Amino acid sequence: MRGTLLANRRGVQRFRQLAITAVKSSNIKLLLLCCIAFTVLVVGTRASDFMGWTNYSDSVDQFPLPEKGYAIVMNTWKRYDLLKQSISHYSSCAGLKSIHIVWSEPNPPSNSLSKFLNHVVESKTKGLKKIKLSFDINKEDSLNNRFKEISGVKTDAVFSIDDDVIFPCSSVEFAFKVWQSAPDAMVGFVPRAHWVDKSHGKKEYYTYGGWWSVWWTGTYSMVLSKAAFFNKKYLRLYTNEMPASIKEFVTKNRNCEDIAMSFLVANATGAPPIWVKGKLHEIGSTGISSLGGHSEKRTRCLNRFVAEFGRMPLLPTTVKAVDSRISWFW
Amino acid sequence: MRGTLLANRRGVQRFRQLAITAVKSSNIKLLLLCCIAFTVLVVGTRASDFMGWTNYSDSVDQFPLPEKGYAIVMNTWKRYDLLKQSISHYSSCAGLKSIHIVWSEPNPPSNSLSKFLNHVVESKTKGLKKIKLSFDINKEDSLNNRFKEISGVKTDAVFSIDDDVIFPCSSVEFAFKVWQSAPDAMVGFVPRAHWVDKSHGKKEYYTYGGWWSVWWTGTYSMVLSKAAFFNKKYLRLYTNEMPASIKEFVTKNRNCEDIAMSFLVANATGAPPIWVKGKLHEIGSTGISSLGGHSEKRTRCLNRFVAEFGRMPLLPTTVKAVDSRISWFW
Repeated sequence: MRGTLLANRRGVQRFRQLAITAVKSSNIKLLLLCCIAFTVLVVGTRASDFMGWTNYSDSVDQFPLPEKGYAIVMNTWKRYDLLKQSISHYSSCAGLKSIHIVWSEPNPPSNSLSKFLNHVVESKTKGLKKIKLSFDINKEDSLNNRFKEISGVKTDAVFSIDDDVIFPCSSVEFAFKVWQSAPDAMVGFVPRAHWVDKSHGKKEYYTYGGWWSVWWTGTYSMVLSKAAFFNKKYLRLYTNEMPASIKEFVTKNRNCEDIAMSFLVANATGAPPIWVKGKLHEIGSTGISSLGGHSEKRTRCLNRFVAEFGRMPLLPTTVKAVDSRISWFW
Repeated sequence: MRGTLLANRRGVQRFRQLAITAVKSSNIKLLLLCCIAFTVLVVGTRASDFMGWTNYSDSVDQFPLPEKGYAIVMNTWKRYDLLKQSISHYSSCAGLKSIHIVWSEPNPPSNSLSKFLNHVVESKTKGLKKIKLSFDINKEDSLNNRFKEISGVKTDAVFSIDDDVIFPCSSVEFAFKVWQSAPDAMVGFVPRAHWVDKSHGKKEYYTYGGWWSVWWTGTYSMVLSKAAFFNKKYLRLYTNEMPASIKEFVTKNRNCEDIAMSFLVANATGAPPIWVKGKLHEIGSTGISSLGGHSEKRTRCLNRFVAEFGRMPLLPTTVKAVDSRISWFW
């Protein structure tokens, strides 16, 4: 390692001499060229043996696999192609231990669908590990189904995901790492906000803030369960302790189960969620958020839930978890 | 709000027309000027009424004060000017509830120092709130003192800080917000790493990684207690359950109490710490890390502690918490 450092120092000395010569002869272009070449060299060899860390690079490159792993709870509804595509993708994620498909149709999944999905999971994992795939069958079509307690979940961490949202495995495992350090929080990719609207007189009134308002202000107070990690204990809490009136409201309006879950977790922890930076790829058609009047509906949910909870439990925050491997500024 | 949106749309239409005219007449400079002016306008009015969110901007600007707050545990040693400067600075942080100065000198603090510090705290808080200031007196000069259990700490959150390190209050409260969502983790500003060094034969051997290696790889496994939040329960654990041999090693070598604390928390949680982006201002002379042989000493500590714990509890991670108000890229 000392030899490498010495070689580096000699290199730096040479570079200095070259730079001085270039400036003296006013050959600025040559200097610029040198700078560019040097930068490319440095950037190109980041985390390599350029800095003399050859011996330790193993522990950097091989980002350790999550020890305990996580379960995927995937909400789906009559979109078998999306379901196949999604399961196929997530099956190859290293930390995944089991997949639970929330099924809300009167007819159970067909044999051919079950066979296909089991085959896909097996082929993706190449027999190296066993990922359990199961259906959580519900006769009633209610959005509350996605938060029903599932007995087969062995891990504490649950990754709740819609069937039409794809994240690279690296992003999922990064979010899992964040969740490991914050196991009581909701940790997700899709932040949303609530704003106090003072135009409604003396009574506290809240407005739902979508993507645009979060981007603009950098502030959020929820992460949506369409792509979020949380402790499986919240499934039990949602199933057993969420006020029946809220669950009925969710079923009837076919909306806002994610806001209800955000209320539940914030109420239990007294803390905000954590937003993880990650690029979402929506496959298939866009969801209910693209329909007209979406914001108004969500605003109605917010104020209804505040009335039910007797207070606003959500807490605004501005924390974003980013990968320090791709963020160079200290 | 609809009126504002309509006005915005009209503005966008005008801007489009102007852009088309500019391109048609090949007046690229005018187009560029328009772009710059538009960008300045948009950036300058971020979170203002430009987007029609006037009513909700209050909840954005007034970042809510931490409800429960935190205690500062400040380690100091015969640097009274630094201590005064530091206490004076942190006293004005909104979430601060109490200050505990870890005193490790044979003589107790002088009356004049006590008076000065109490006066500073009172004047900084302007009587609006009561911050309790106390000394934790230790006769023995040991680095373990900084992690002694302190009975007067009322908050769960402790901000452990050296007397020569200054962070703006906004950074401290931001880190506190991160800690609120991850109350079992160490949440700090100064990340460090351990690397597996395979050149030492079959036996697992570790090397300490300083600032430079963390910056280069984006990976870390500790945050130093010179500037970190953690739950006060870890003070109890350090005092009562840290192996005596490790505490003796720390006292004798006058080093590595922070590595020992990182081992303790990682061992208890099975999770990595969280690094918060923040600019550290060192006042006064630099610490022991600038002395010769620092890395070698820290490497020795690492391997000694691994032997005592019977395993390496530290987990590498690449999570960095940044403020989404100043990070615009989704």
